[in-house]
Amino acid sequence: MDVISVIRAKRDGHALGPEQIDWVIDAYTRGLVADEQMSALAMAILLNGMDRGEIARWTAAMIASGERMDFSVLDRPTADKHSTGGVGDKITLPLAPLVAACGAAVPQLSGRGLGHTGGTLDKLESIPGWRAQLSNAQMLEVLGDVGAVICAAGDGLAPADKKLYALRDVTGTVEAIPLIASSIMSKKIAEGTGSLVLDVKVGSGAFMKSLDDARELASTMVGLGTDHGVRTVALLTEMSTPLGLTAGNALEVRESVEVLAGGGPEDVVELTLALAREMLDAAGLPDADPAKALADGSAMDHWRRMIAAQGGDPDAELPVAREQHVLTATATGRLTRLDAYDVGVAAWRLGAGRARKEDAVQAGAGVELHAKPGQDVVAGQPLLTLHTDTPEAFDYALASLEGAYDIAAPGSDEAAAHRPTPIVLNRVS
Amino acid sequence: MDVISVIRAKRDGHALGPEQIDWVIDAYTRGLVADEQMSALAMAILLNGMDRGEIARWTAAMIASGERMDFSVLDRPTADKHSTGGVGDKITLPLAPLVAACGAAVPQLSGRGLGHTGGTLDKLESIPGWRAQLSNAQMLEVLGDVGAVICAAGDGLAPADKKLYALRDVTGTVEAIPLIASSIMSKKIAEGTGSLVLDVKVGSGAFMKSLDDARELASTMVGLGTDHGVRTVALLTEMSTPLGLTAGNALEVRESVEVLAGGGPEDVVELTLALAREMLDAAGLPDADPAKALADGSAMDHWRRMIAAQGGDPDAELPVAREQHVLTATATGRLTRLDAYDVGVAAWRLGAGRARKEDAVQAGAGVELHAKPGQDVVAGQPLLTLHTDTPEAFDYALASLEGAYDIAAPGSDEAAAHRPTPIVLNRVS
Repeated sequence: MDVISVIRAKRDGHALGPEQIDWVIDAYTRGLVADEQMSALAMAILLNGMDRGEIARWTAAMIASGERMDFSVLDRPTADKHSTGGVGDKITLPLAPLVAACGAAVPQLSGRGLGHTGGTLDKLESIPGWRAQLSNAQMLEVLGDVGAVICAAGDGLAPADKKLYALRDVTGTVEAIPLIASSIMSKKIAEGTGSLVLDVKVGSGAFMKSLDDARELASTMVGLGTDHGVRTVALLTEMSTPLGLTAGNALEVRESVEVLAGGGPEDVVELTLALAREMLDAAGLPDADPAKALADGSAMDHWRRMIAAQGGDPDAELPVAREQHVLTATATGRLTRLDAYDVGVAAWRLGAGRARKEDAVQAGAGVELHAKPGQDVVAGQPLLTLHTDTPEAFDYALASLEGAYDIAAPGSDEAAAHRPTPIVLNRVS
Repeated sequence: MDVISVIRAKRDGHALGPEQIDWVIDAYTRGLVADEQMSALAMAILLNGMDRGEIARWTAAMIASGERMDFSVLDRPTADKHSTGGVGDKITLPLAPLVAACGAAVPQLSGRGLGHTGGTLDKLESIPGWRAQLSNAQMLEVLGDVGAVICAAGDGLAPADKKLYALRDVTGTVEAIPLIASSIMSKKIAEGTGSLVLDVKVGSGAFMKSLDDARELASTMVGLGTDHGVRTVALLTEMSTPLGLTAGNALEVRESVEVLAGGGPEDVVELTLALAREMLDAAGLPDADPAKALADGSAMDHWRRMIAAQGGDPDAELPVAREQHVLTATATGRLTRLDAYDVGVAAWRLGAGRARKEDAVQAGAGVELHAKPGQDVVAGQPLLTLHTDTPEAFDYALASLEGAYDIAAPGSDEAAAHRPTPIVLNRVS
């Protein structure tokens, strides 16, 4: 077996055979296939695609490159959620303790943000004392005690994916559905969850800009999960405007706690409940009532225990950015558009995200929304508040917000025609 | 400017702008763009192509990455030849002294073999004492004294191409017409020749298997040369069977000397003269008579002086391989096919070529042909003689020769239908 023949096969539009896939993933993990060879293969995959059999084998080979976790010792069914990433997507924070409160165990291995979408671990790290890094034994202990754990994936899980993901990030080969699907699913299957709900975001602030692409990604991932014995379902959800009223680390923790306290923005509550119901269904707990668990405080109770179990103080004051700048509405009328991508880039530039993996993030930085599409605004009223510790970033963030929103004149056809987009667009199972 | 946006542009099917091309070639040469990034870009170029403007800029940027030579001090016009490589293609050896004998100066920068095609420098190095490495000053001196020089390209010429060529070789991105054309032409233009004749090989033993691909490559290169003020013409020539009766280093030198002595195989003489006439025409010497220069010994005289000028002894015995194995014809009839690629691979496996750049080659190894397509053979007569210093290679070489030839029964339709293929298939100017 040699790598050039594998690259050539895919380059020339052929399907890779199982032995070719097993060999190339193993050889790449062990350093026998060089980065420049794998990146050429990744580009050929991006441009020429892979069929379902190839994607399944590719995923299996990445799983086989490392350890697999096993939660069979737990006395309750496991359910996990994965989001493809969006702006203001803090759903994991209220969702994990909520589902735990309803009787499932939620082993949530999460990542950090890169680019315009935030990372769950970055958000939780704005809570004083909270730590993301747990050993497998510690993870299992928190999961047993609390029912939910959100932590960083260990190095032992799908190391081939870890290496390939970093490579794709610097070689323009991220946007390949086979590679995205296998990357996500190899980690989730190796993690050992019994059921999985995928939140596939669609829209300007998401990876997938079109519903068709999102549906293809979703059905690819659902197929992979099902083939590996994981009960898997996907929701396609709206990401053309930010989720909730905040994008940023501590800002989003605060909003999540509001949801756990029974309040919070409508869209965040709606999506949290929709995903919770899917997770509980997939875990074999269809009679659980997540709305009740939000209302009666049991979800909040699980949140507090989950944060405390990882060294965090759930009562601590959350960090606030040193400087604020208010962006006001330039006209009176109906807000018909507030672009998720532009807001995500602004939050990132304010310090909430990182440009390179080794960068630090600011806990308090981000963007606060004072109106959402569909609401009426008055010229001069606050539309967005920008938060940062580095005020020199305001201009740079404001530049990304030029043209980020539309206001339709009162009584105009555009204002009348505006319809709210539902949060859940579609379901794939 | 950042490399990921350049990769994405080509990945998504857009033309690269001049600034993007200049930047990426310069940054790659200086190590600011990593190999894994350039290989992803090369794969995107291979699959999505480049238009004429992009190829021209890409070539110009590679030329600009290094020095340009200048032969304007010479008192005669310069003419160079480049072959895209084939099996038994020793034409440079008789051609360079022949054209010099007719009044042009031939600055022939050549390469080493890799894979199944031989390299001119490897062939000449089988002459005791001959050395390929000359400084620019030494090269100019030999060129002034003898009129022809064949030597290795210095490191200063198109360093971007040198780096990119090595990368493409290990990443399955060799077979891209824009990259092949710009690689060849950047070196030839930087070398400073006034006119250039391209020998674009077509057939099983060539890079280009189809006439259409070969024509596209030829017209791309002719366009690039013309745009840079180099009088450029291309011949498309036959490479489905080996050229001449030998493939191997010393074996081919011996055959070349036969041609210079006025003998040698018909096809080698025909192609040498055709290319010589094109070079002399392009150099502004249309009245020169290369056939006469072969017949009257002046070409041979220039050969001897050229070899001696680089330390070689033109009278020395050439190395002979330690072991021979004769492959006999399995049937009586007309030889209708003898595959160039299979013979090339056999010669390579016998030790005439190298699998990796750092390998040494055997001077005496190779394949000798006792019949060519169109000739009648008798069962049991010698068809090929294999030469090697490492007889354990015989089986490996013989394996590549299984199915390498067809013999049509005497009087059969196949035998009657066989027509010799002309050497020169087409001309592009």
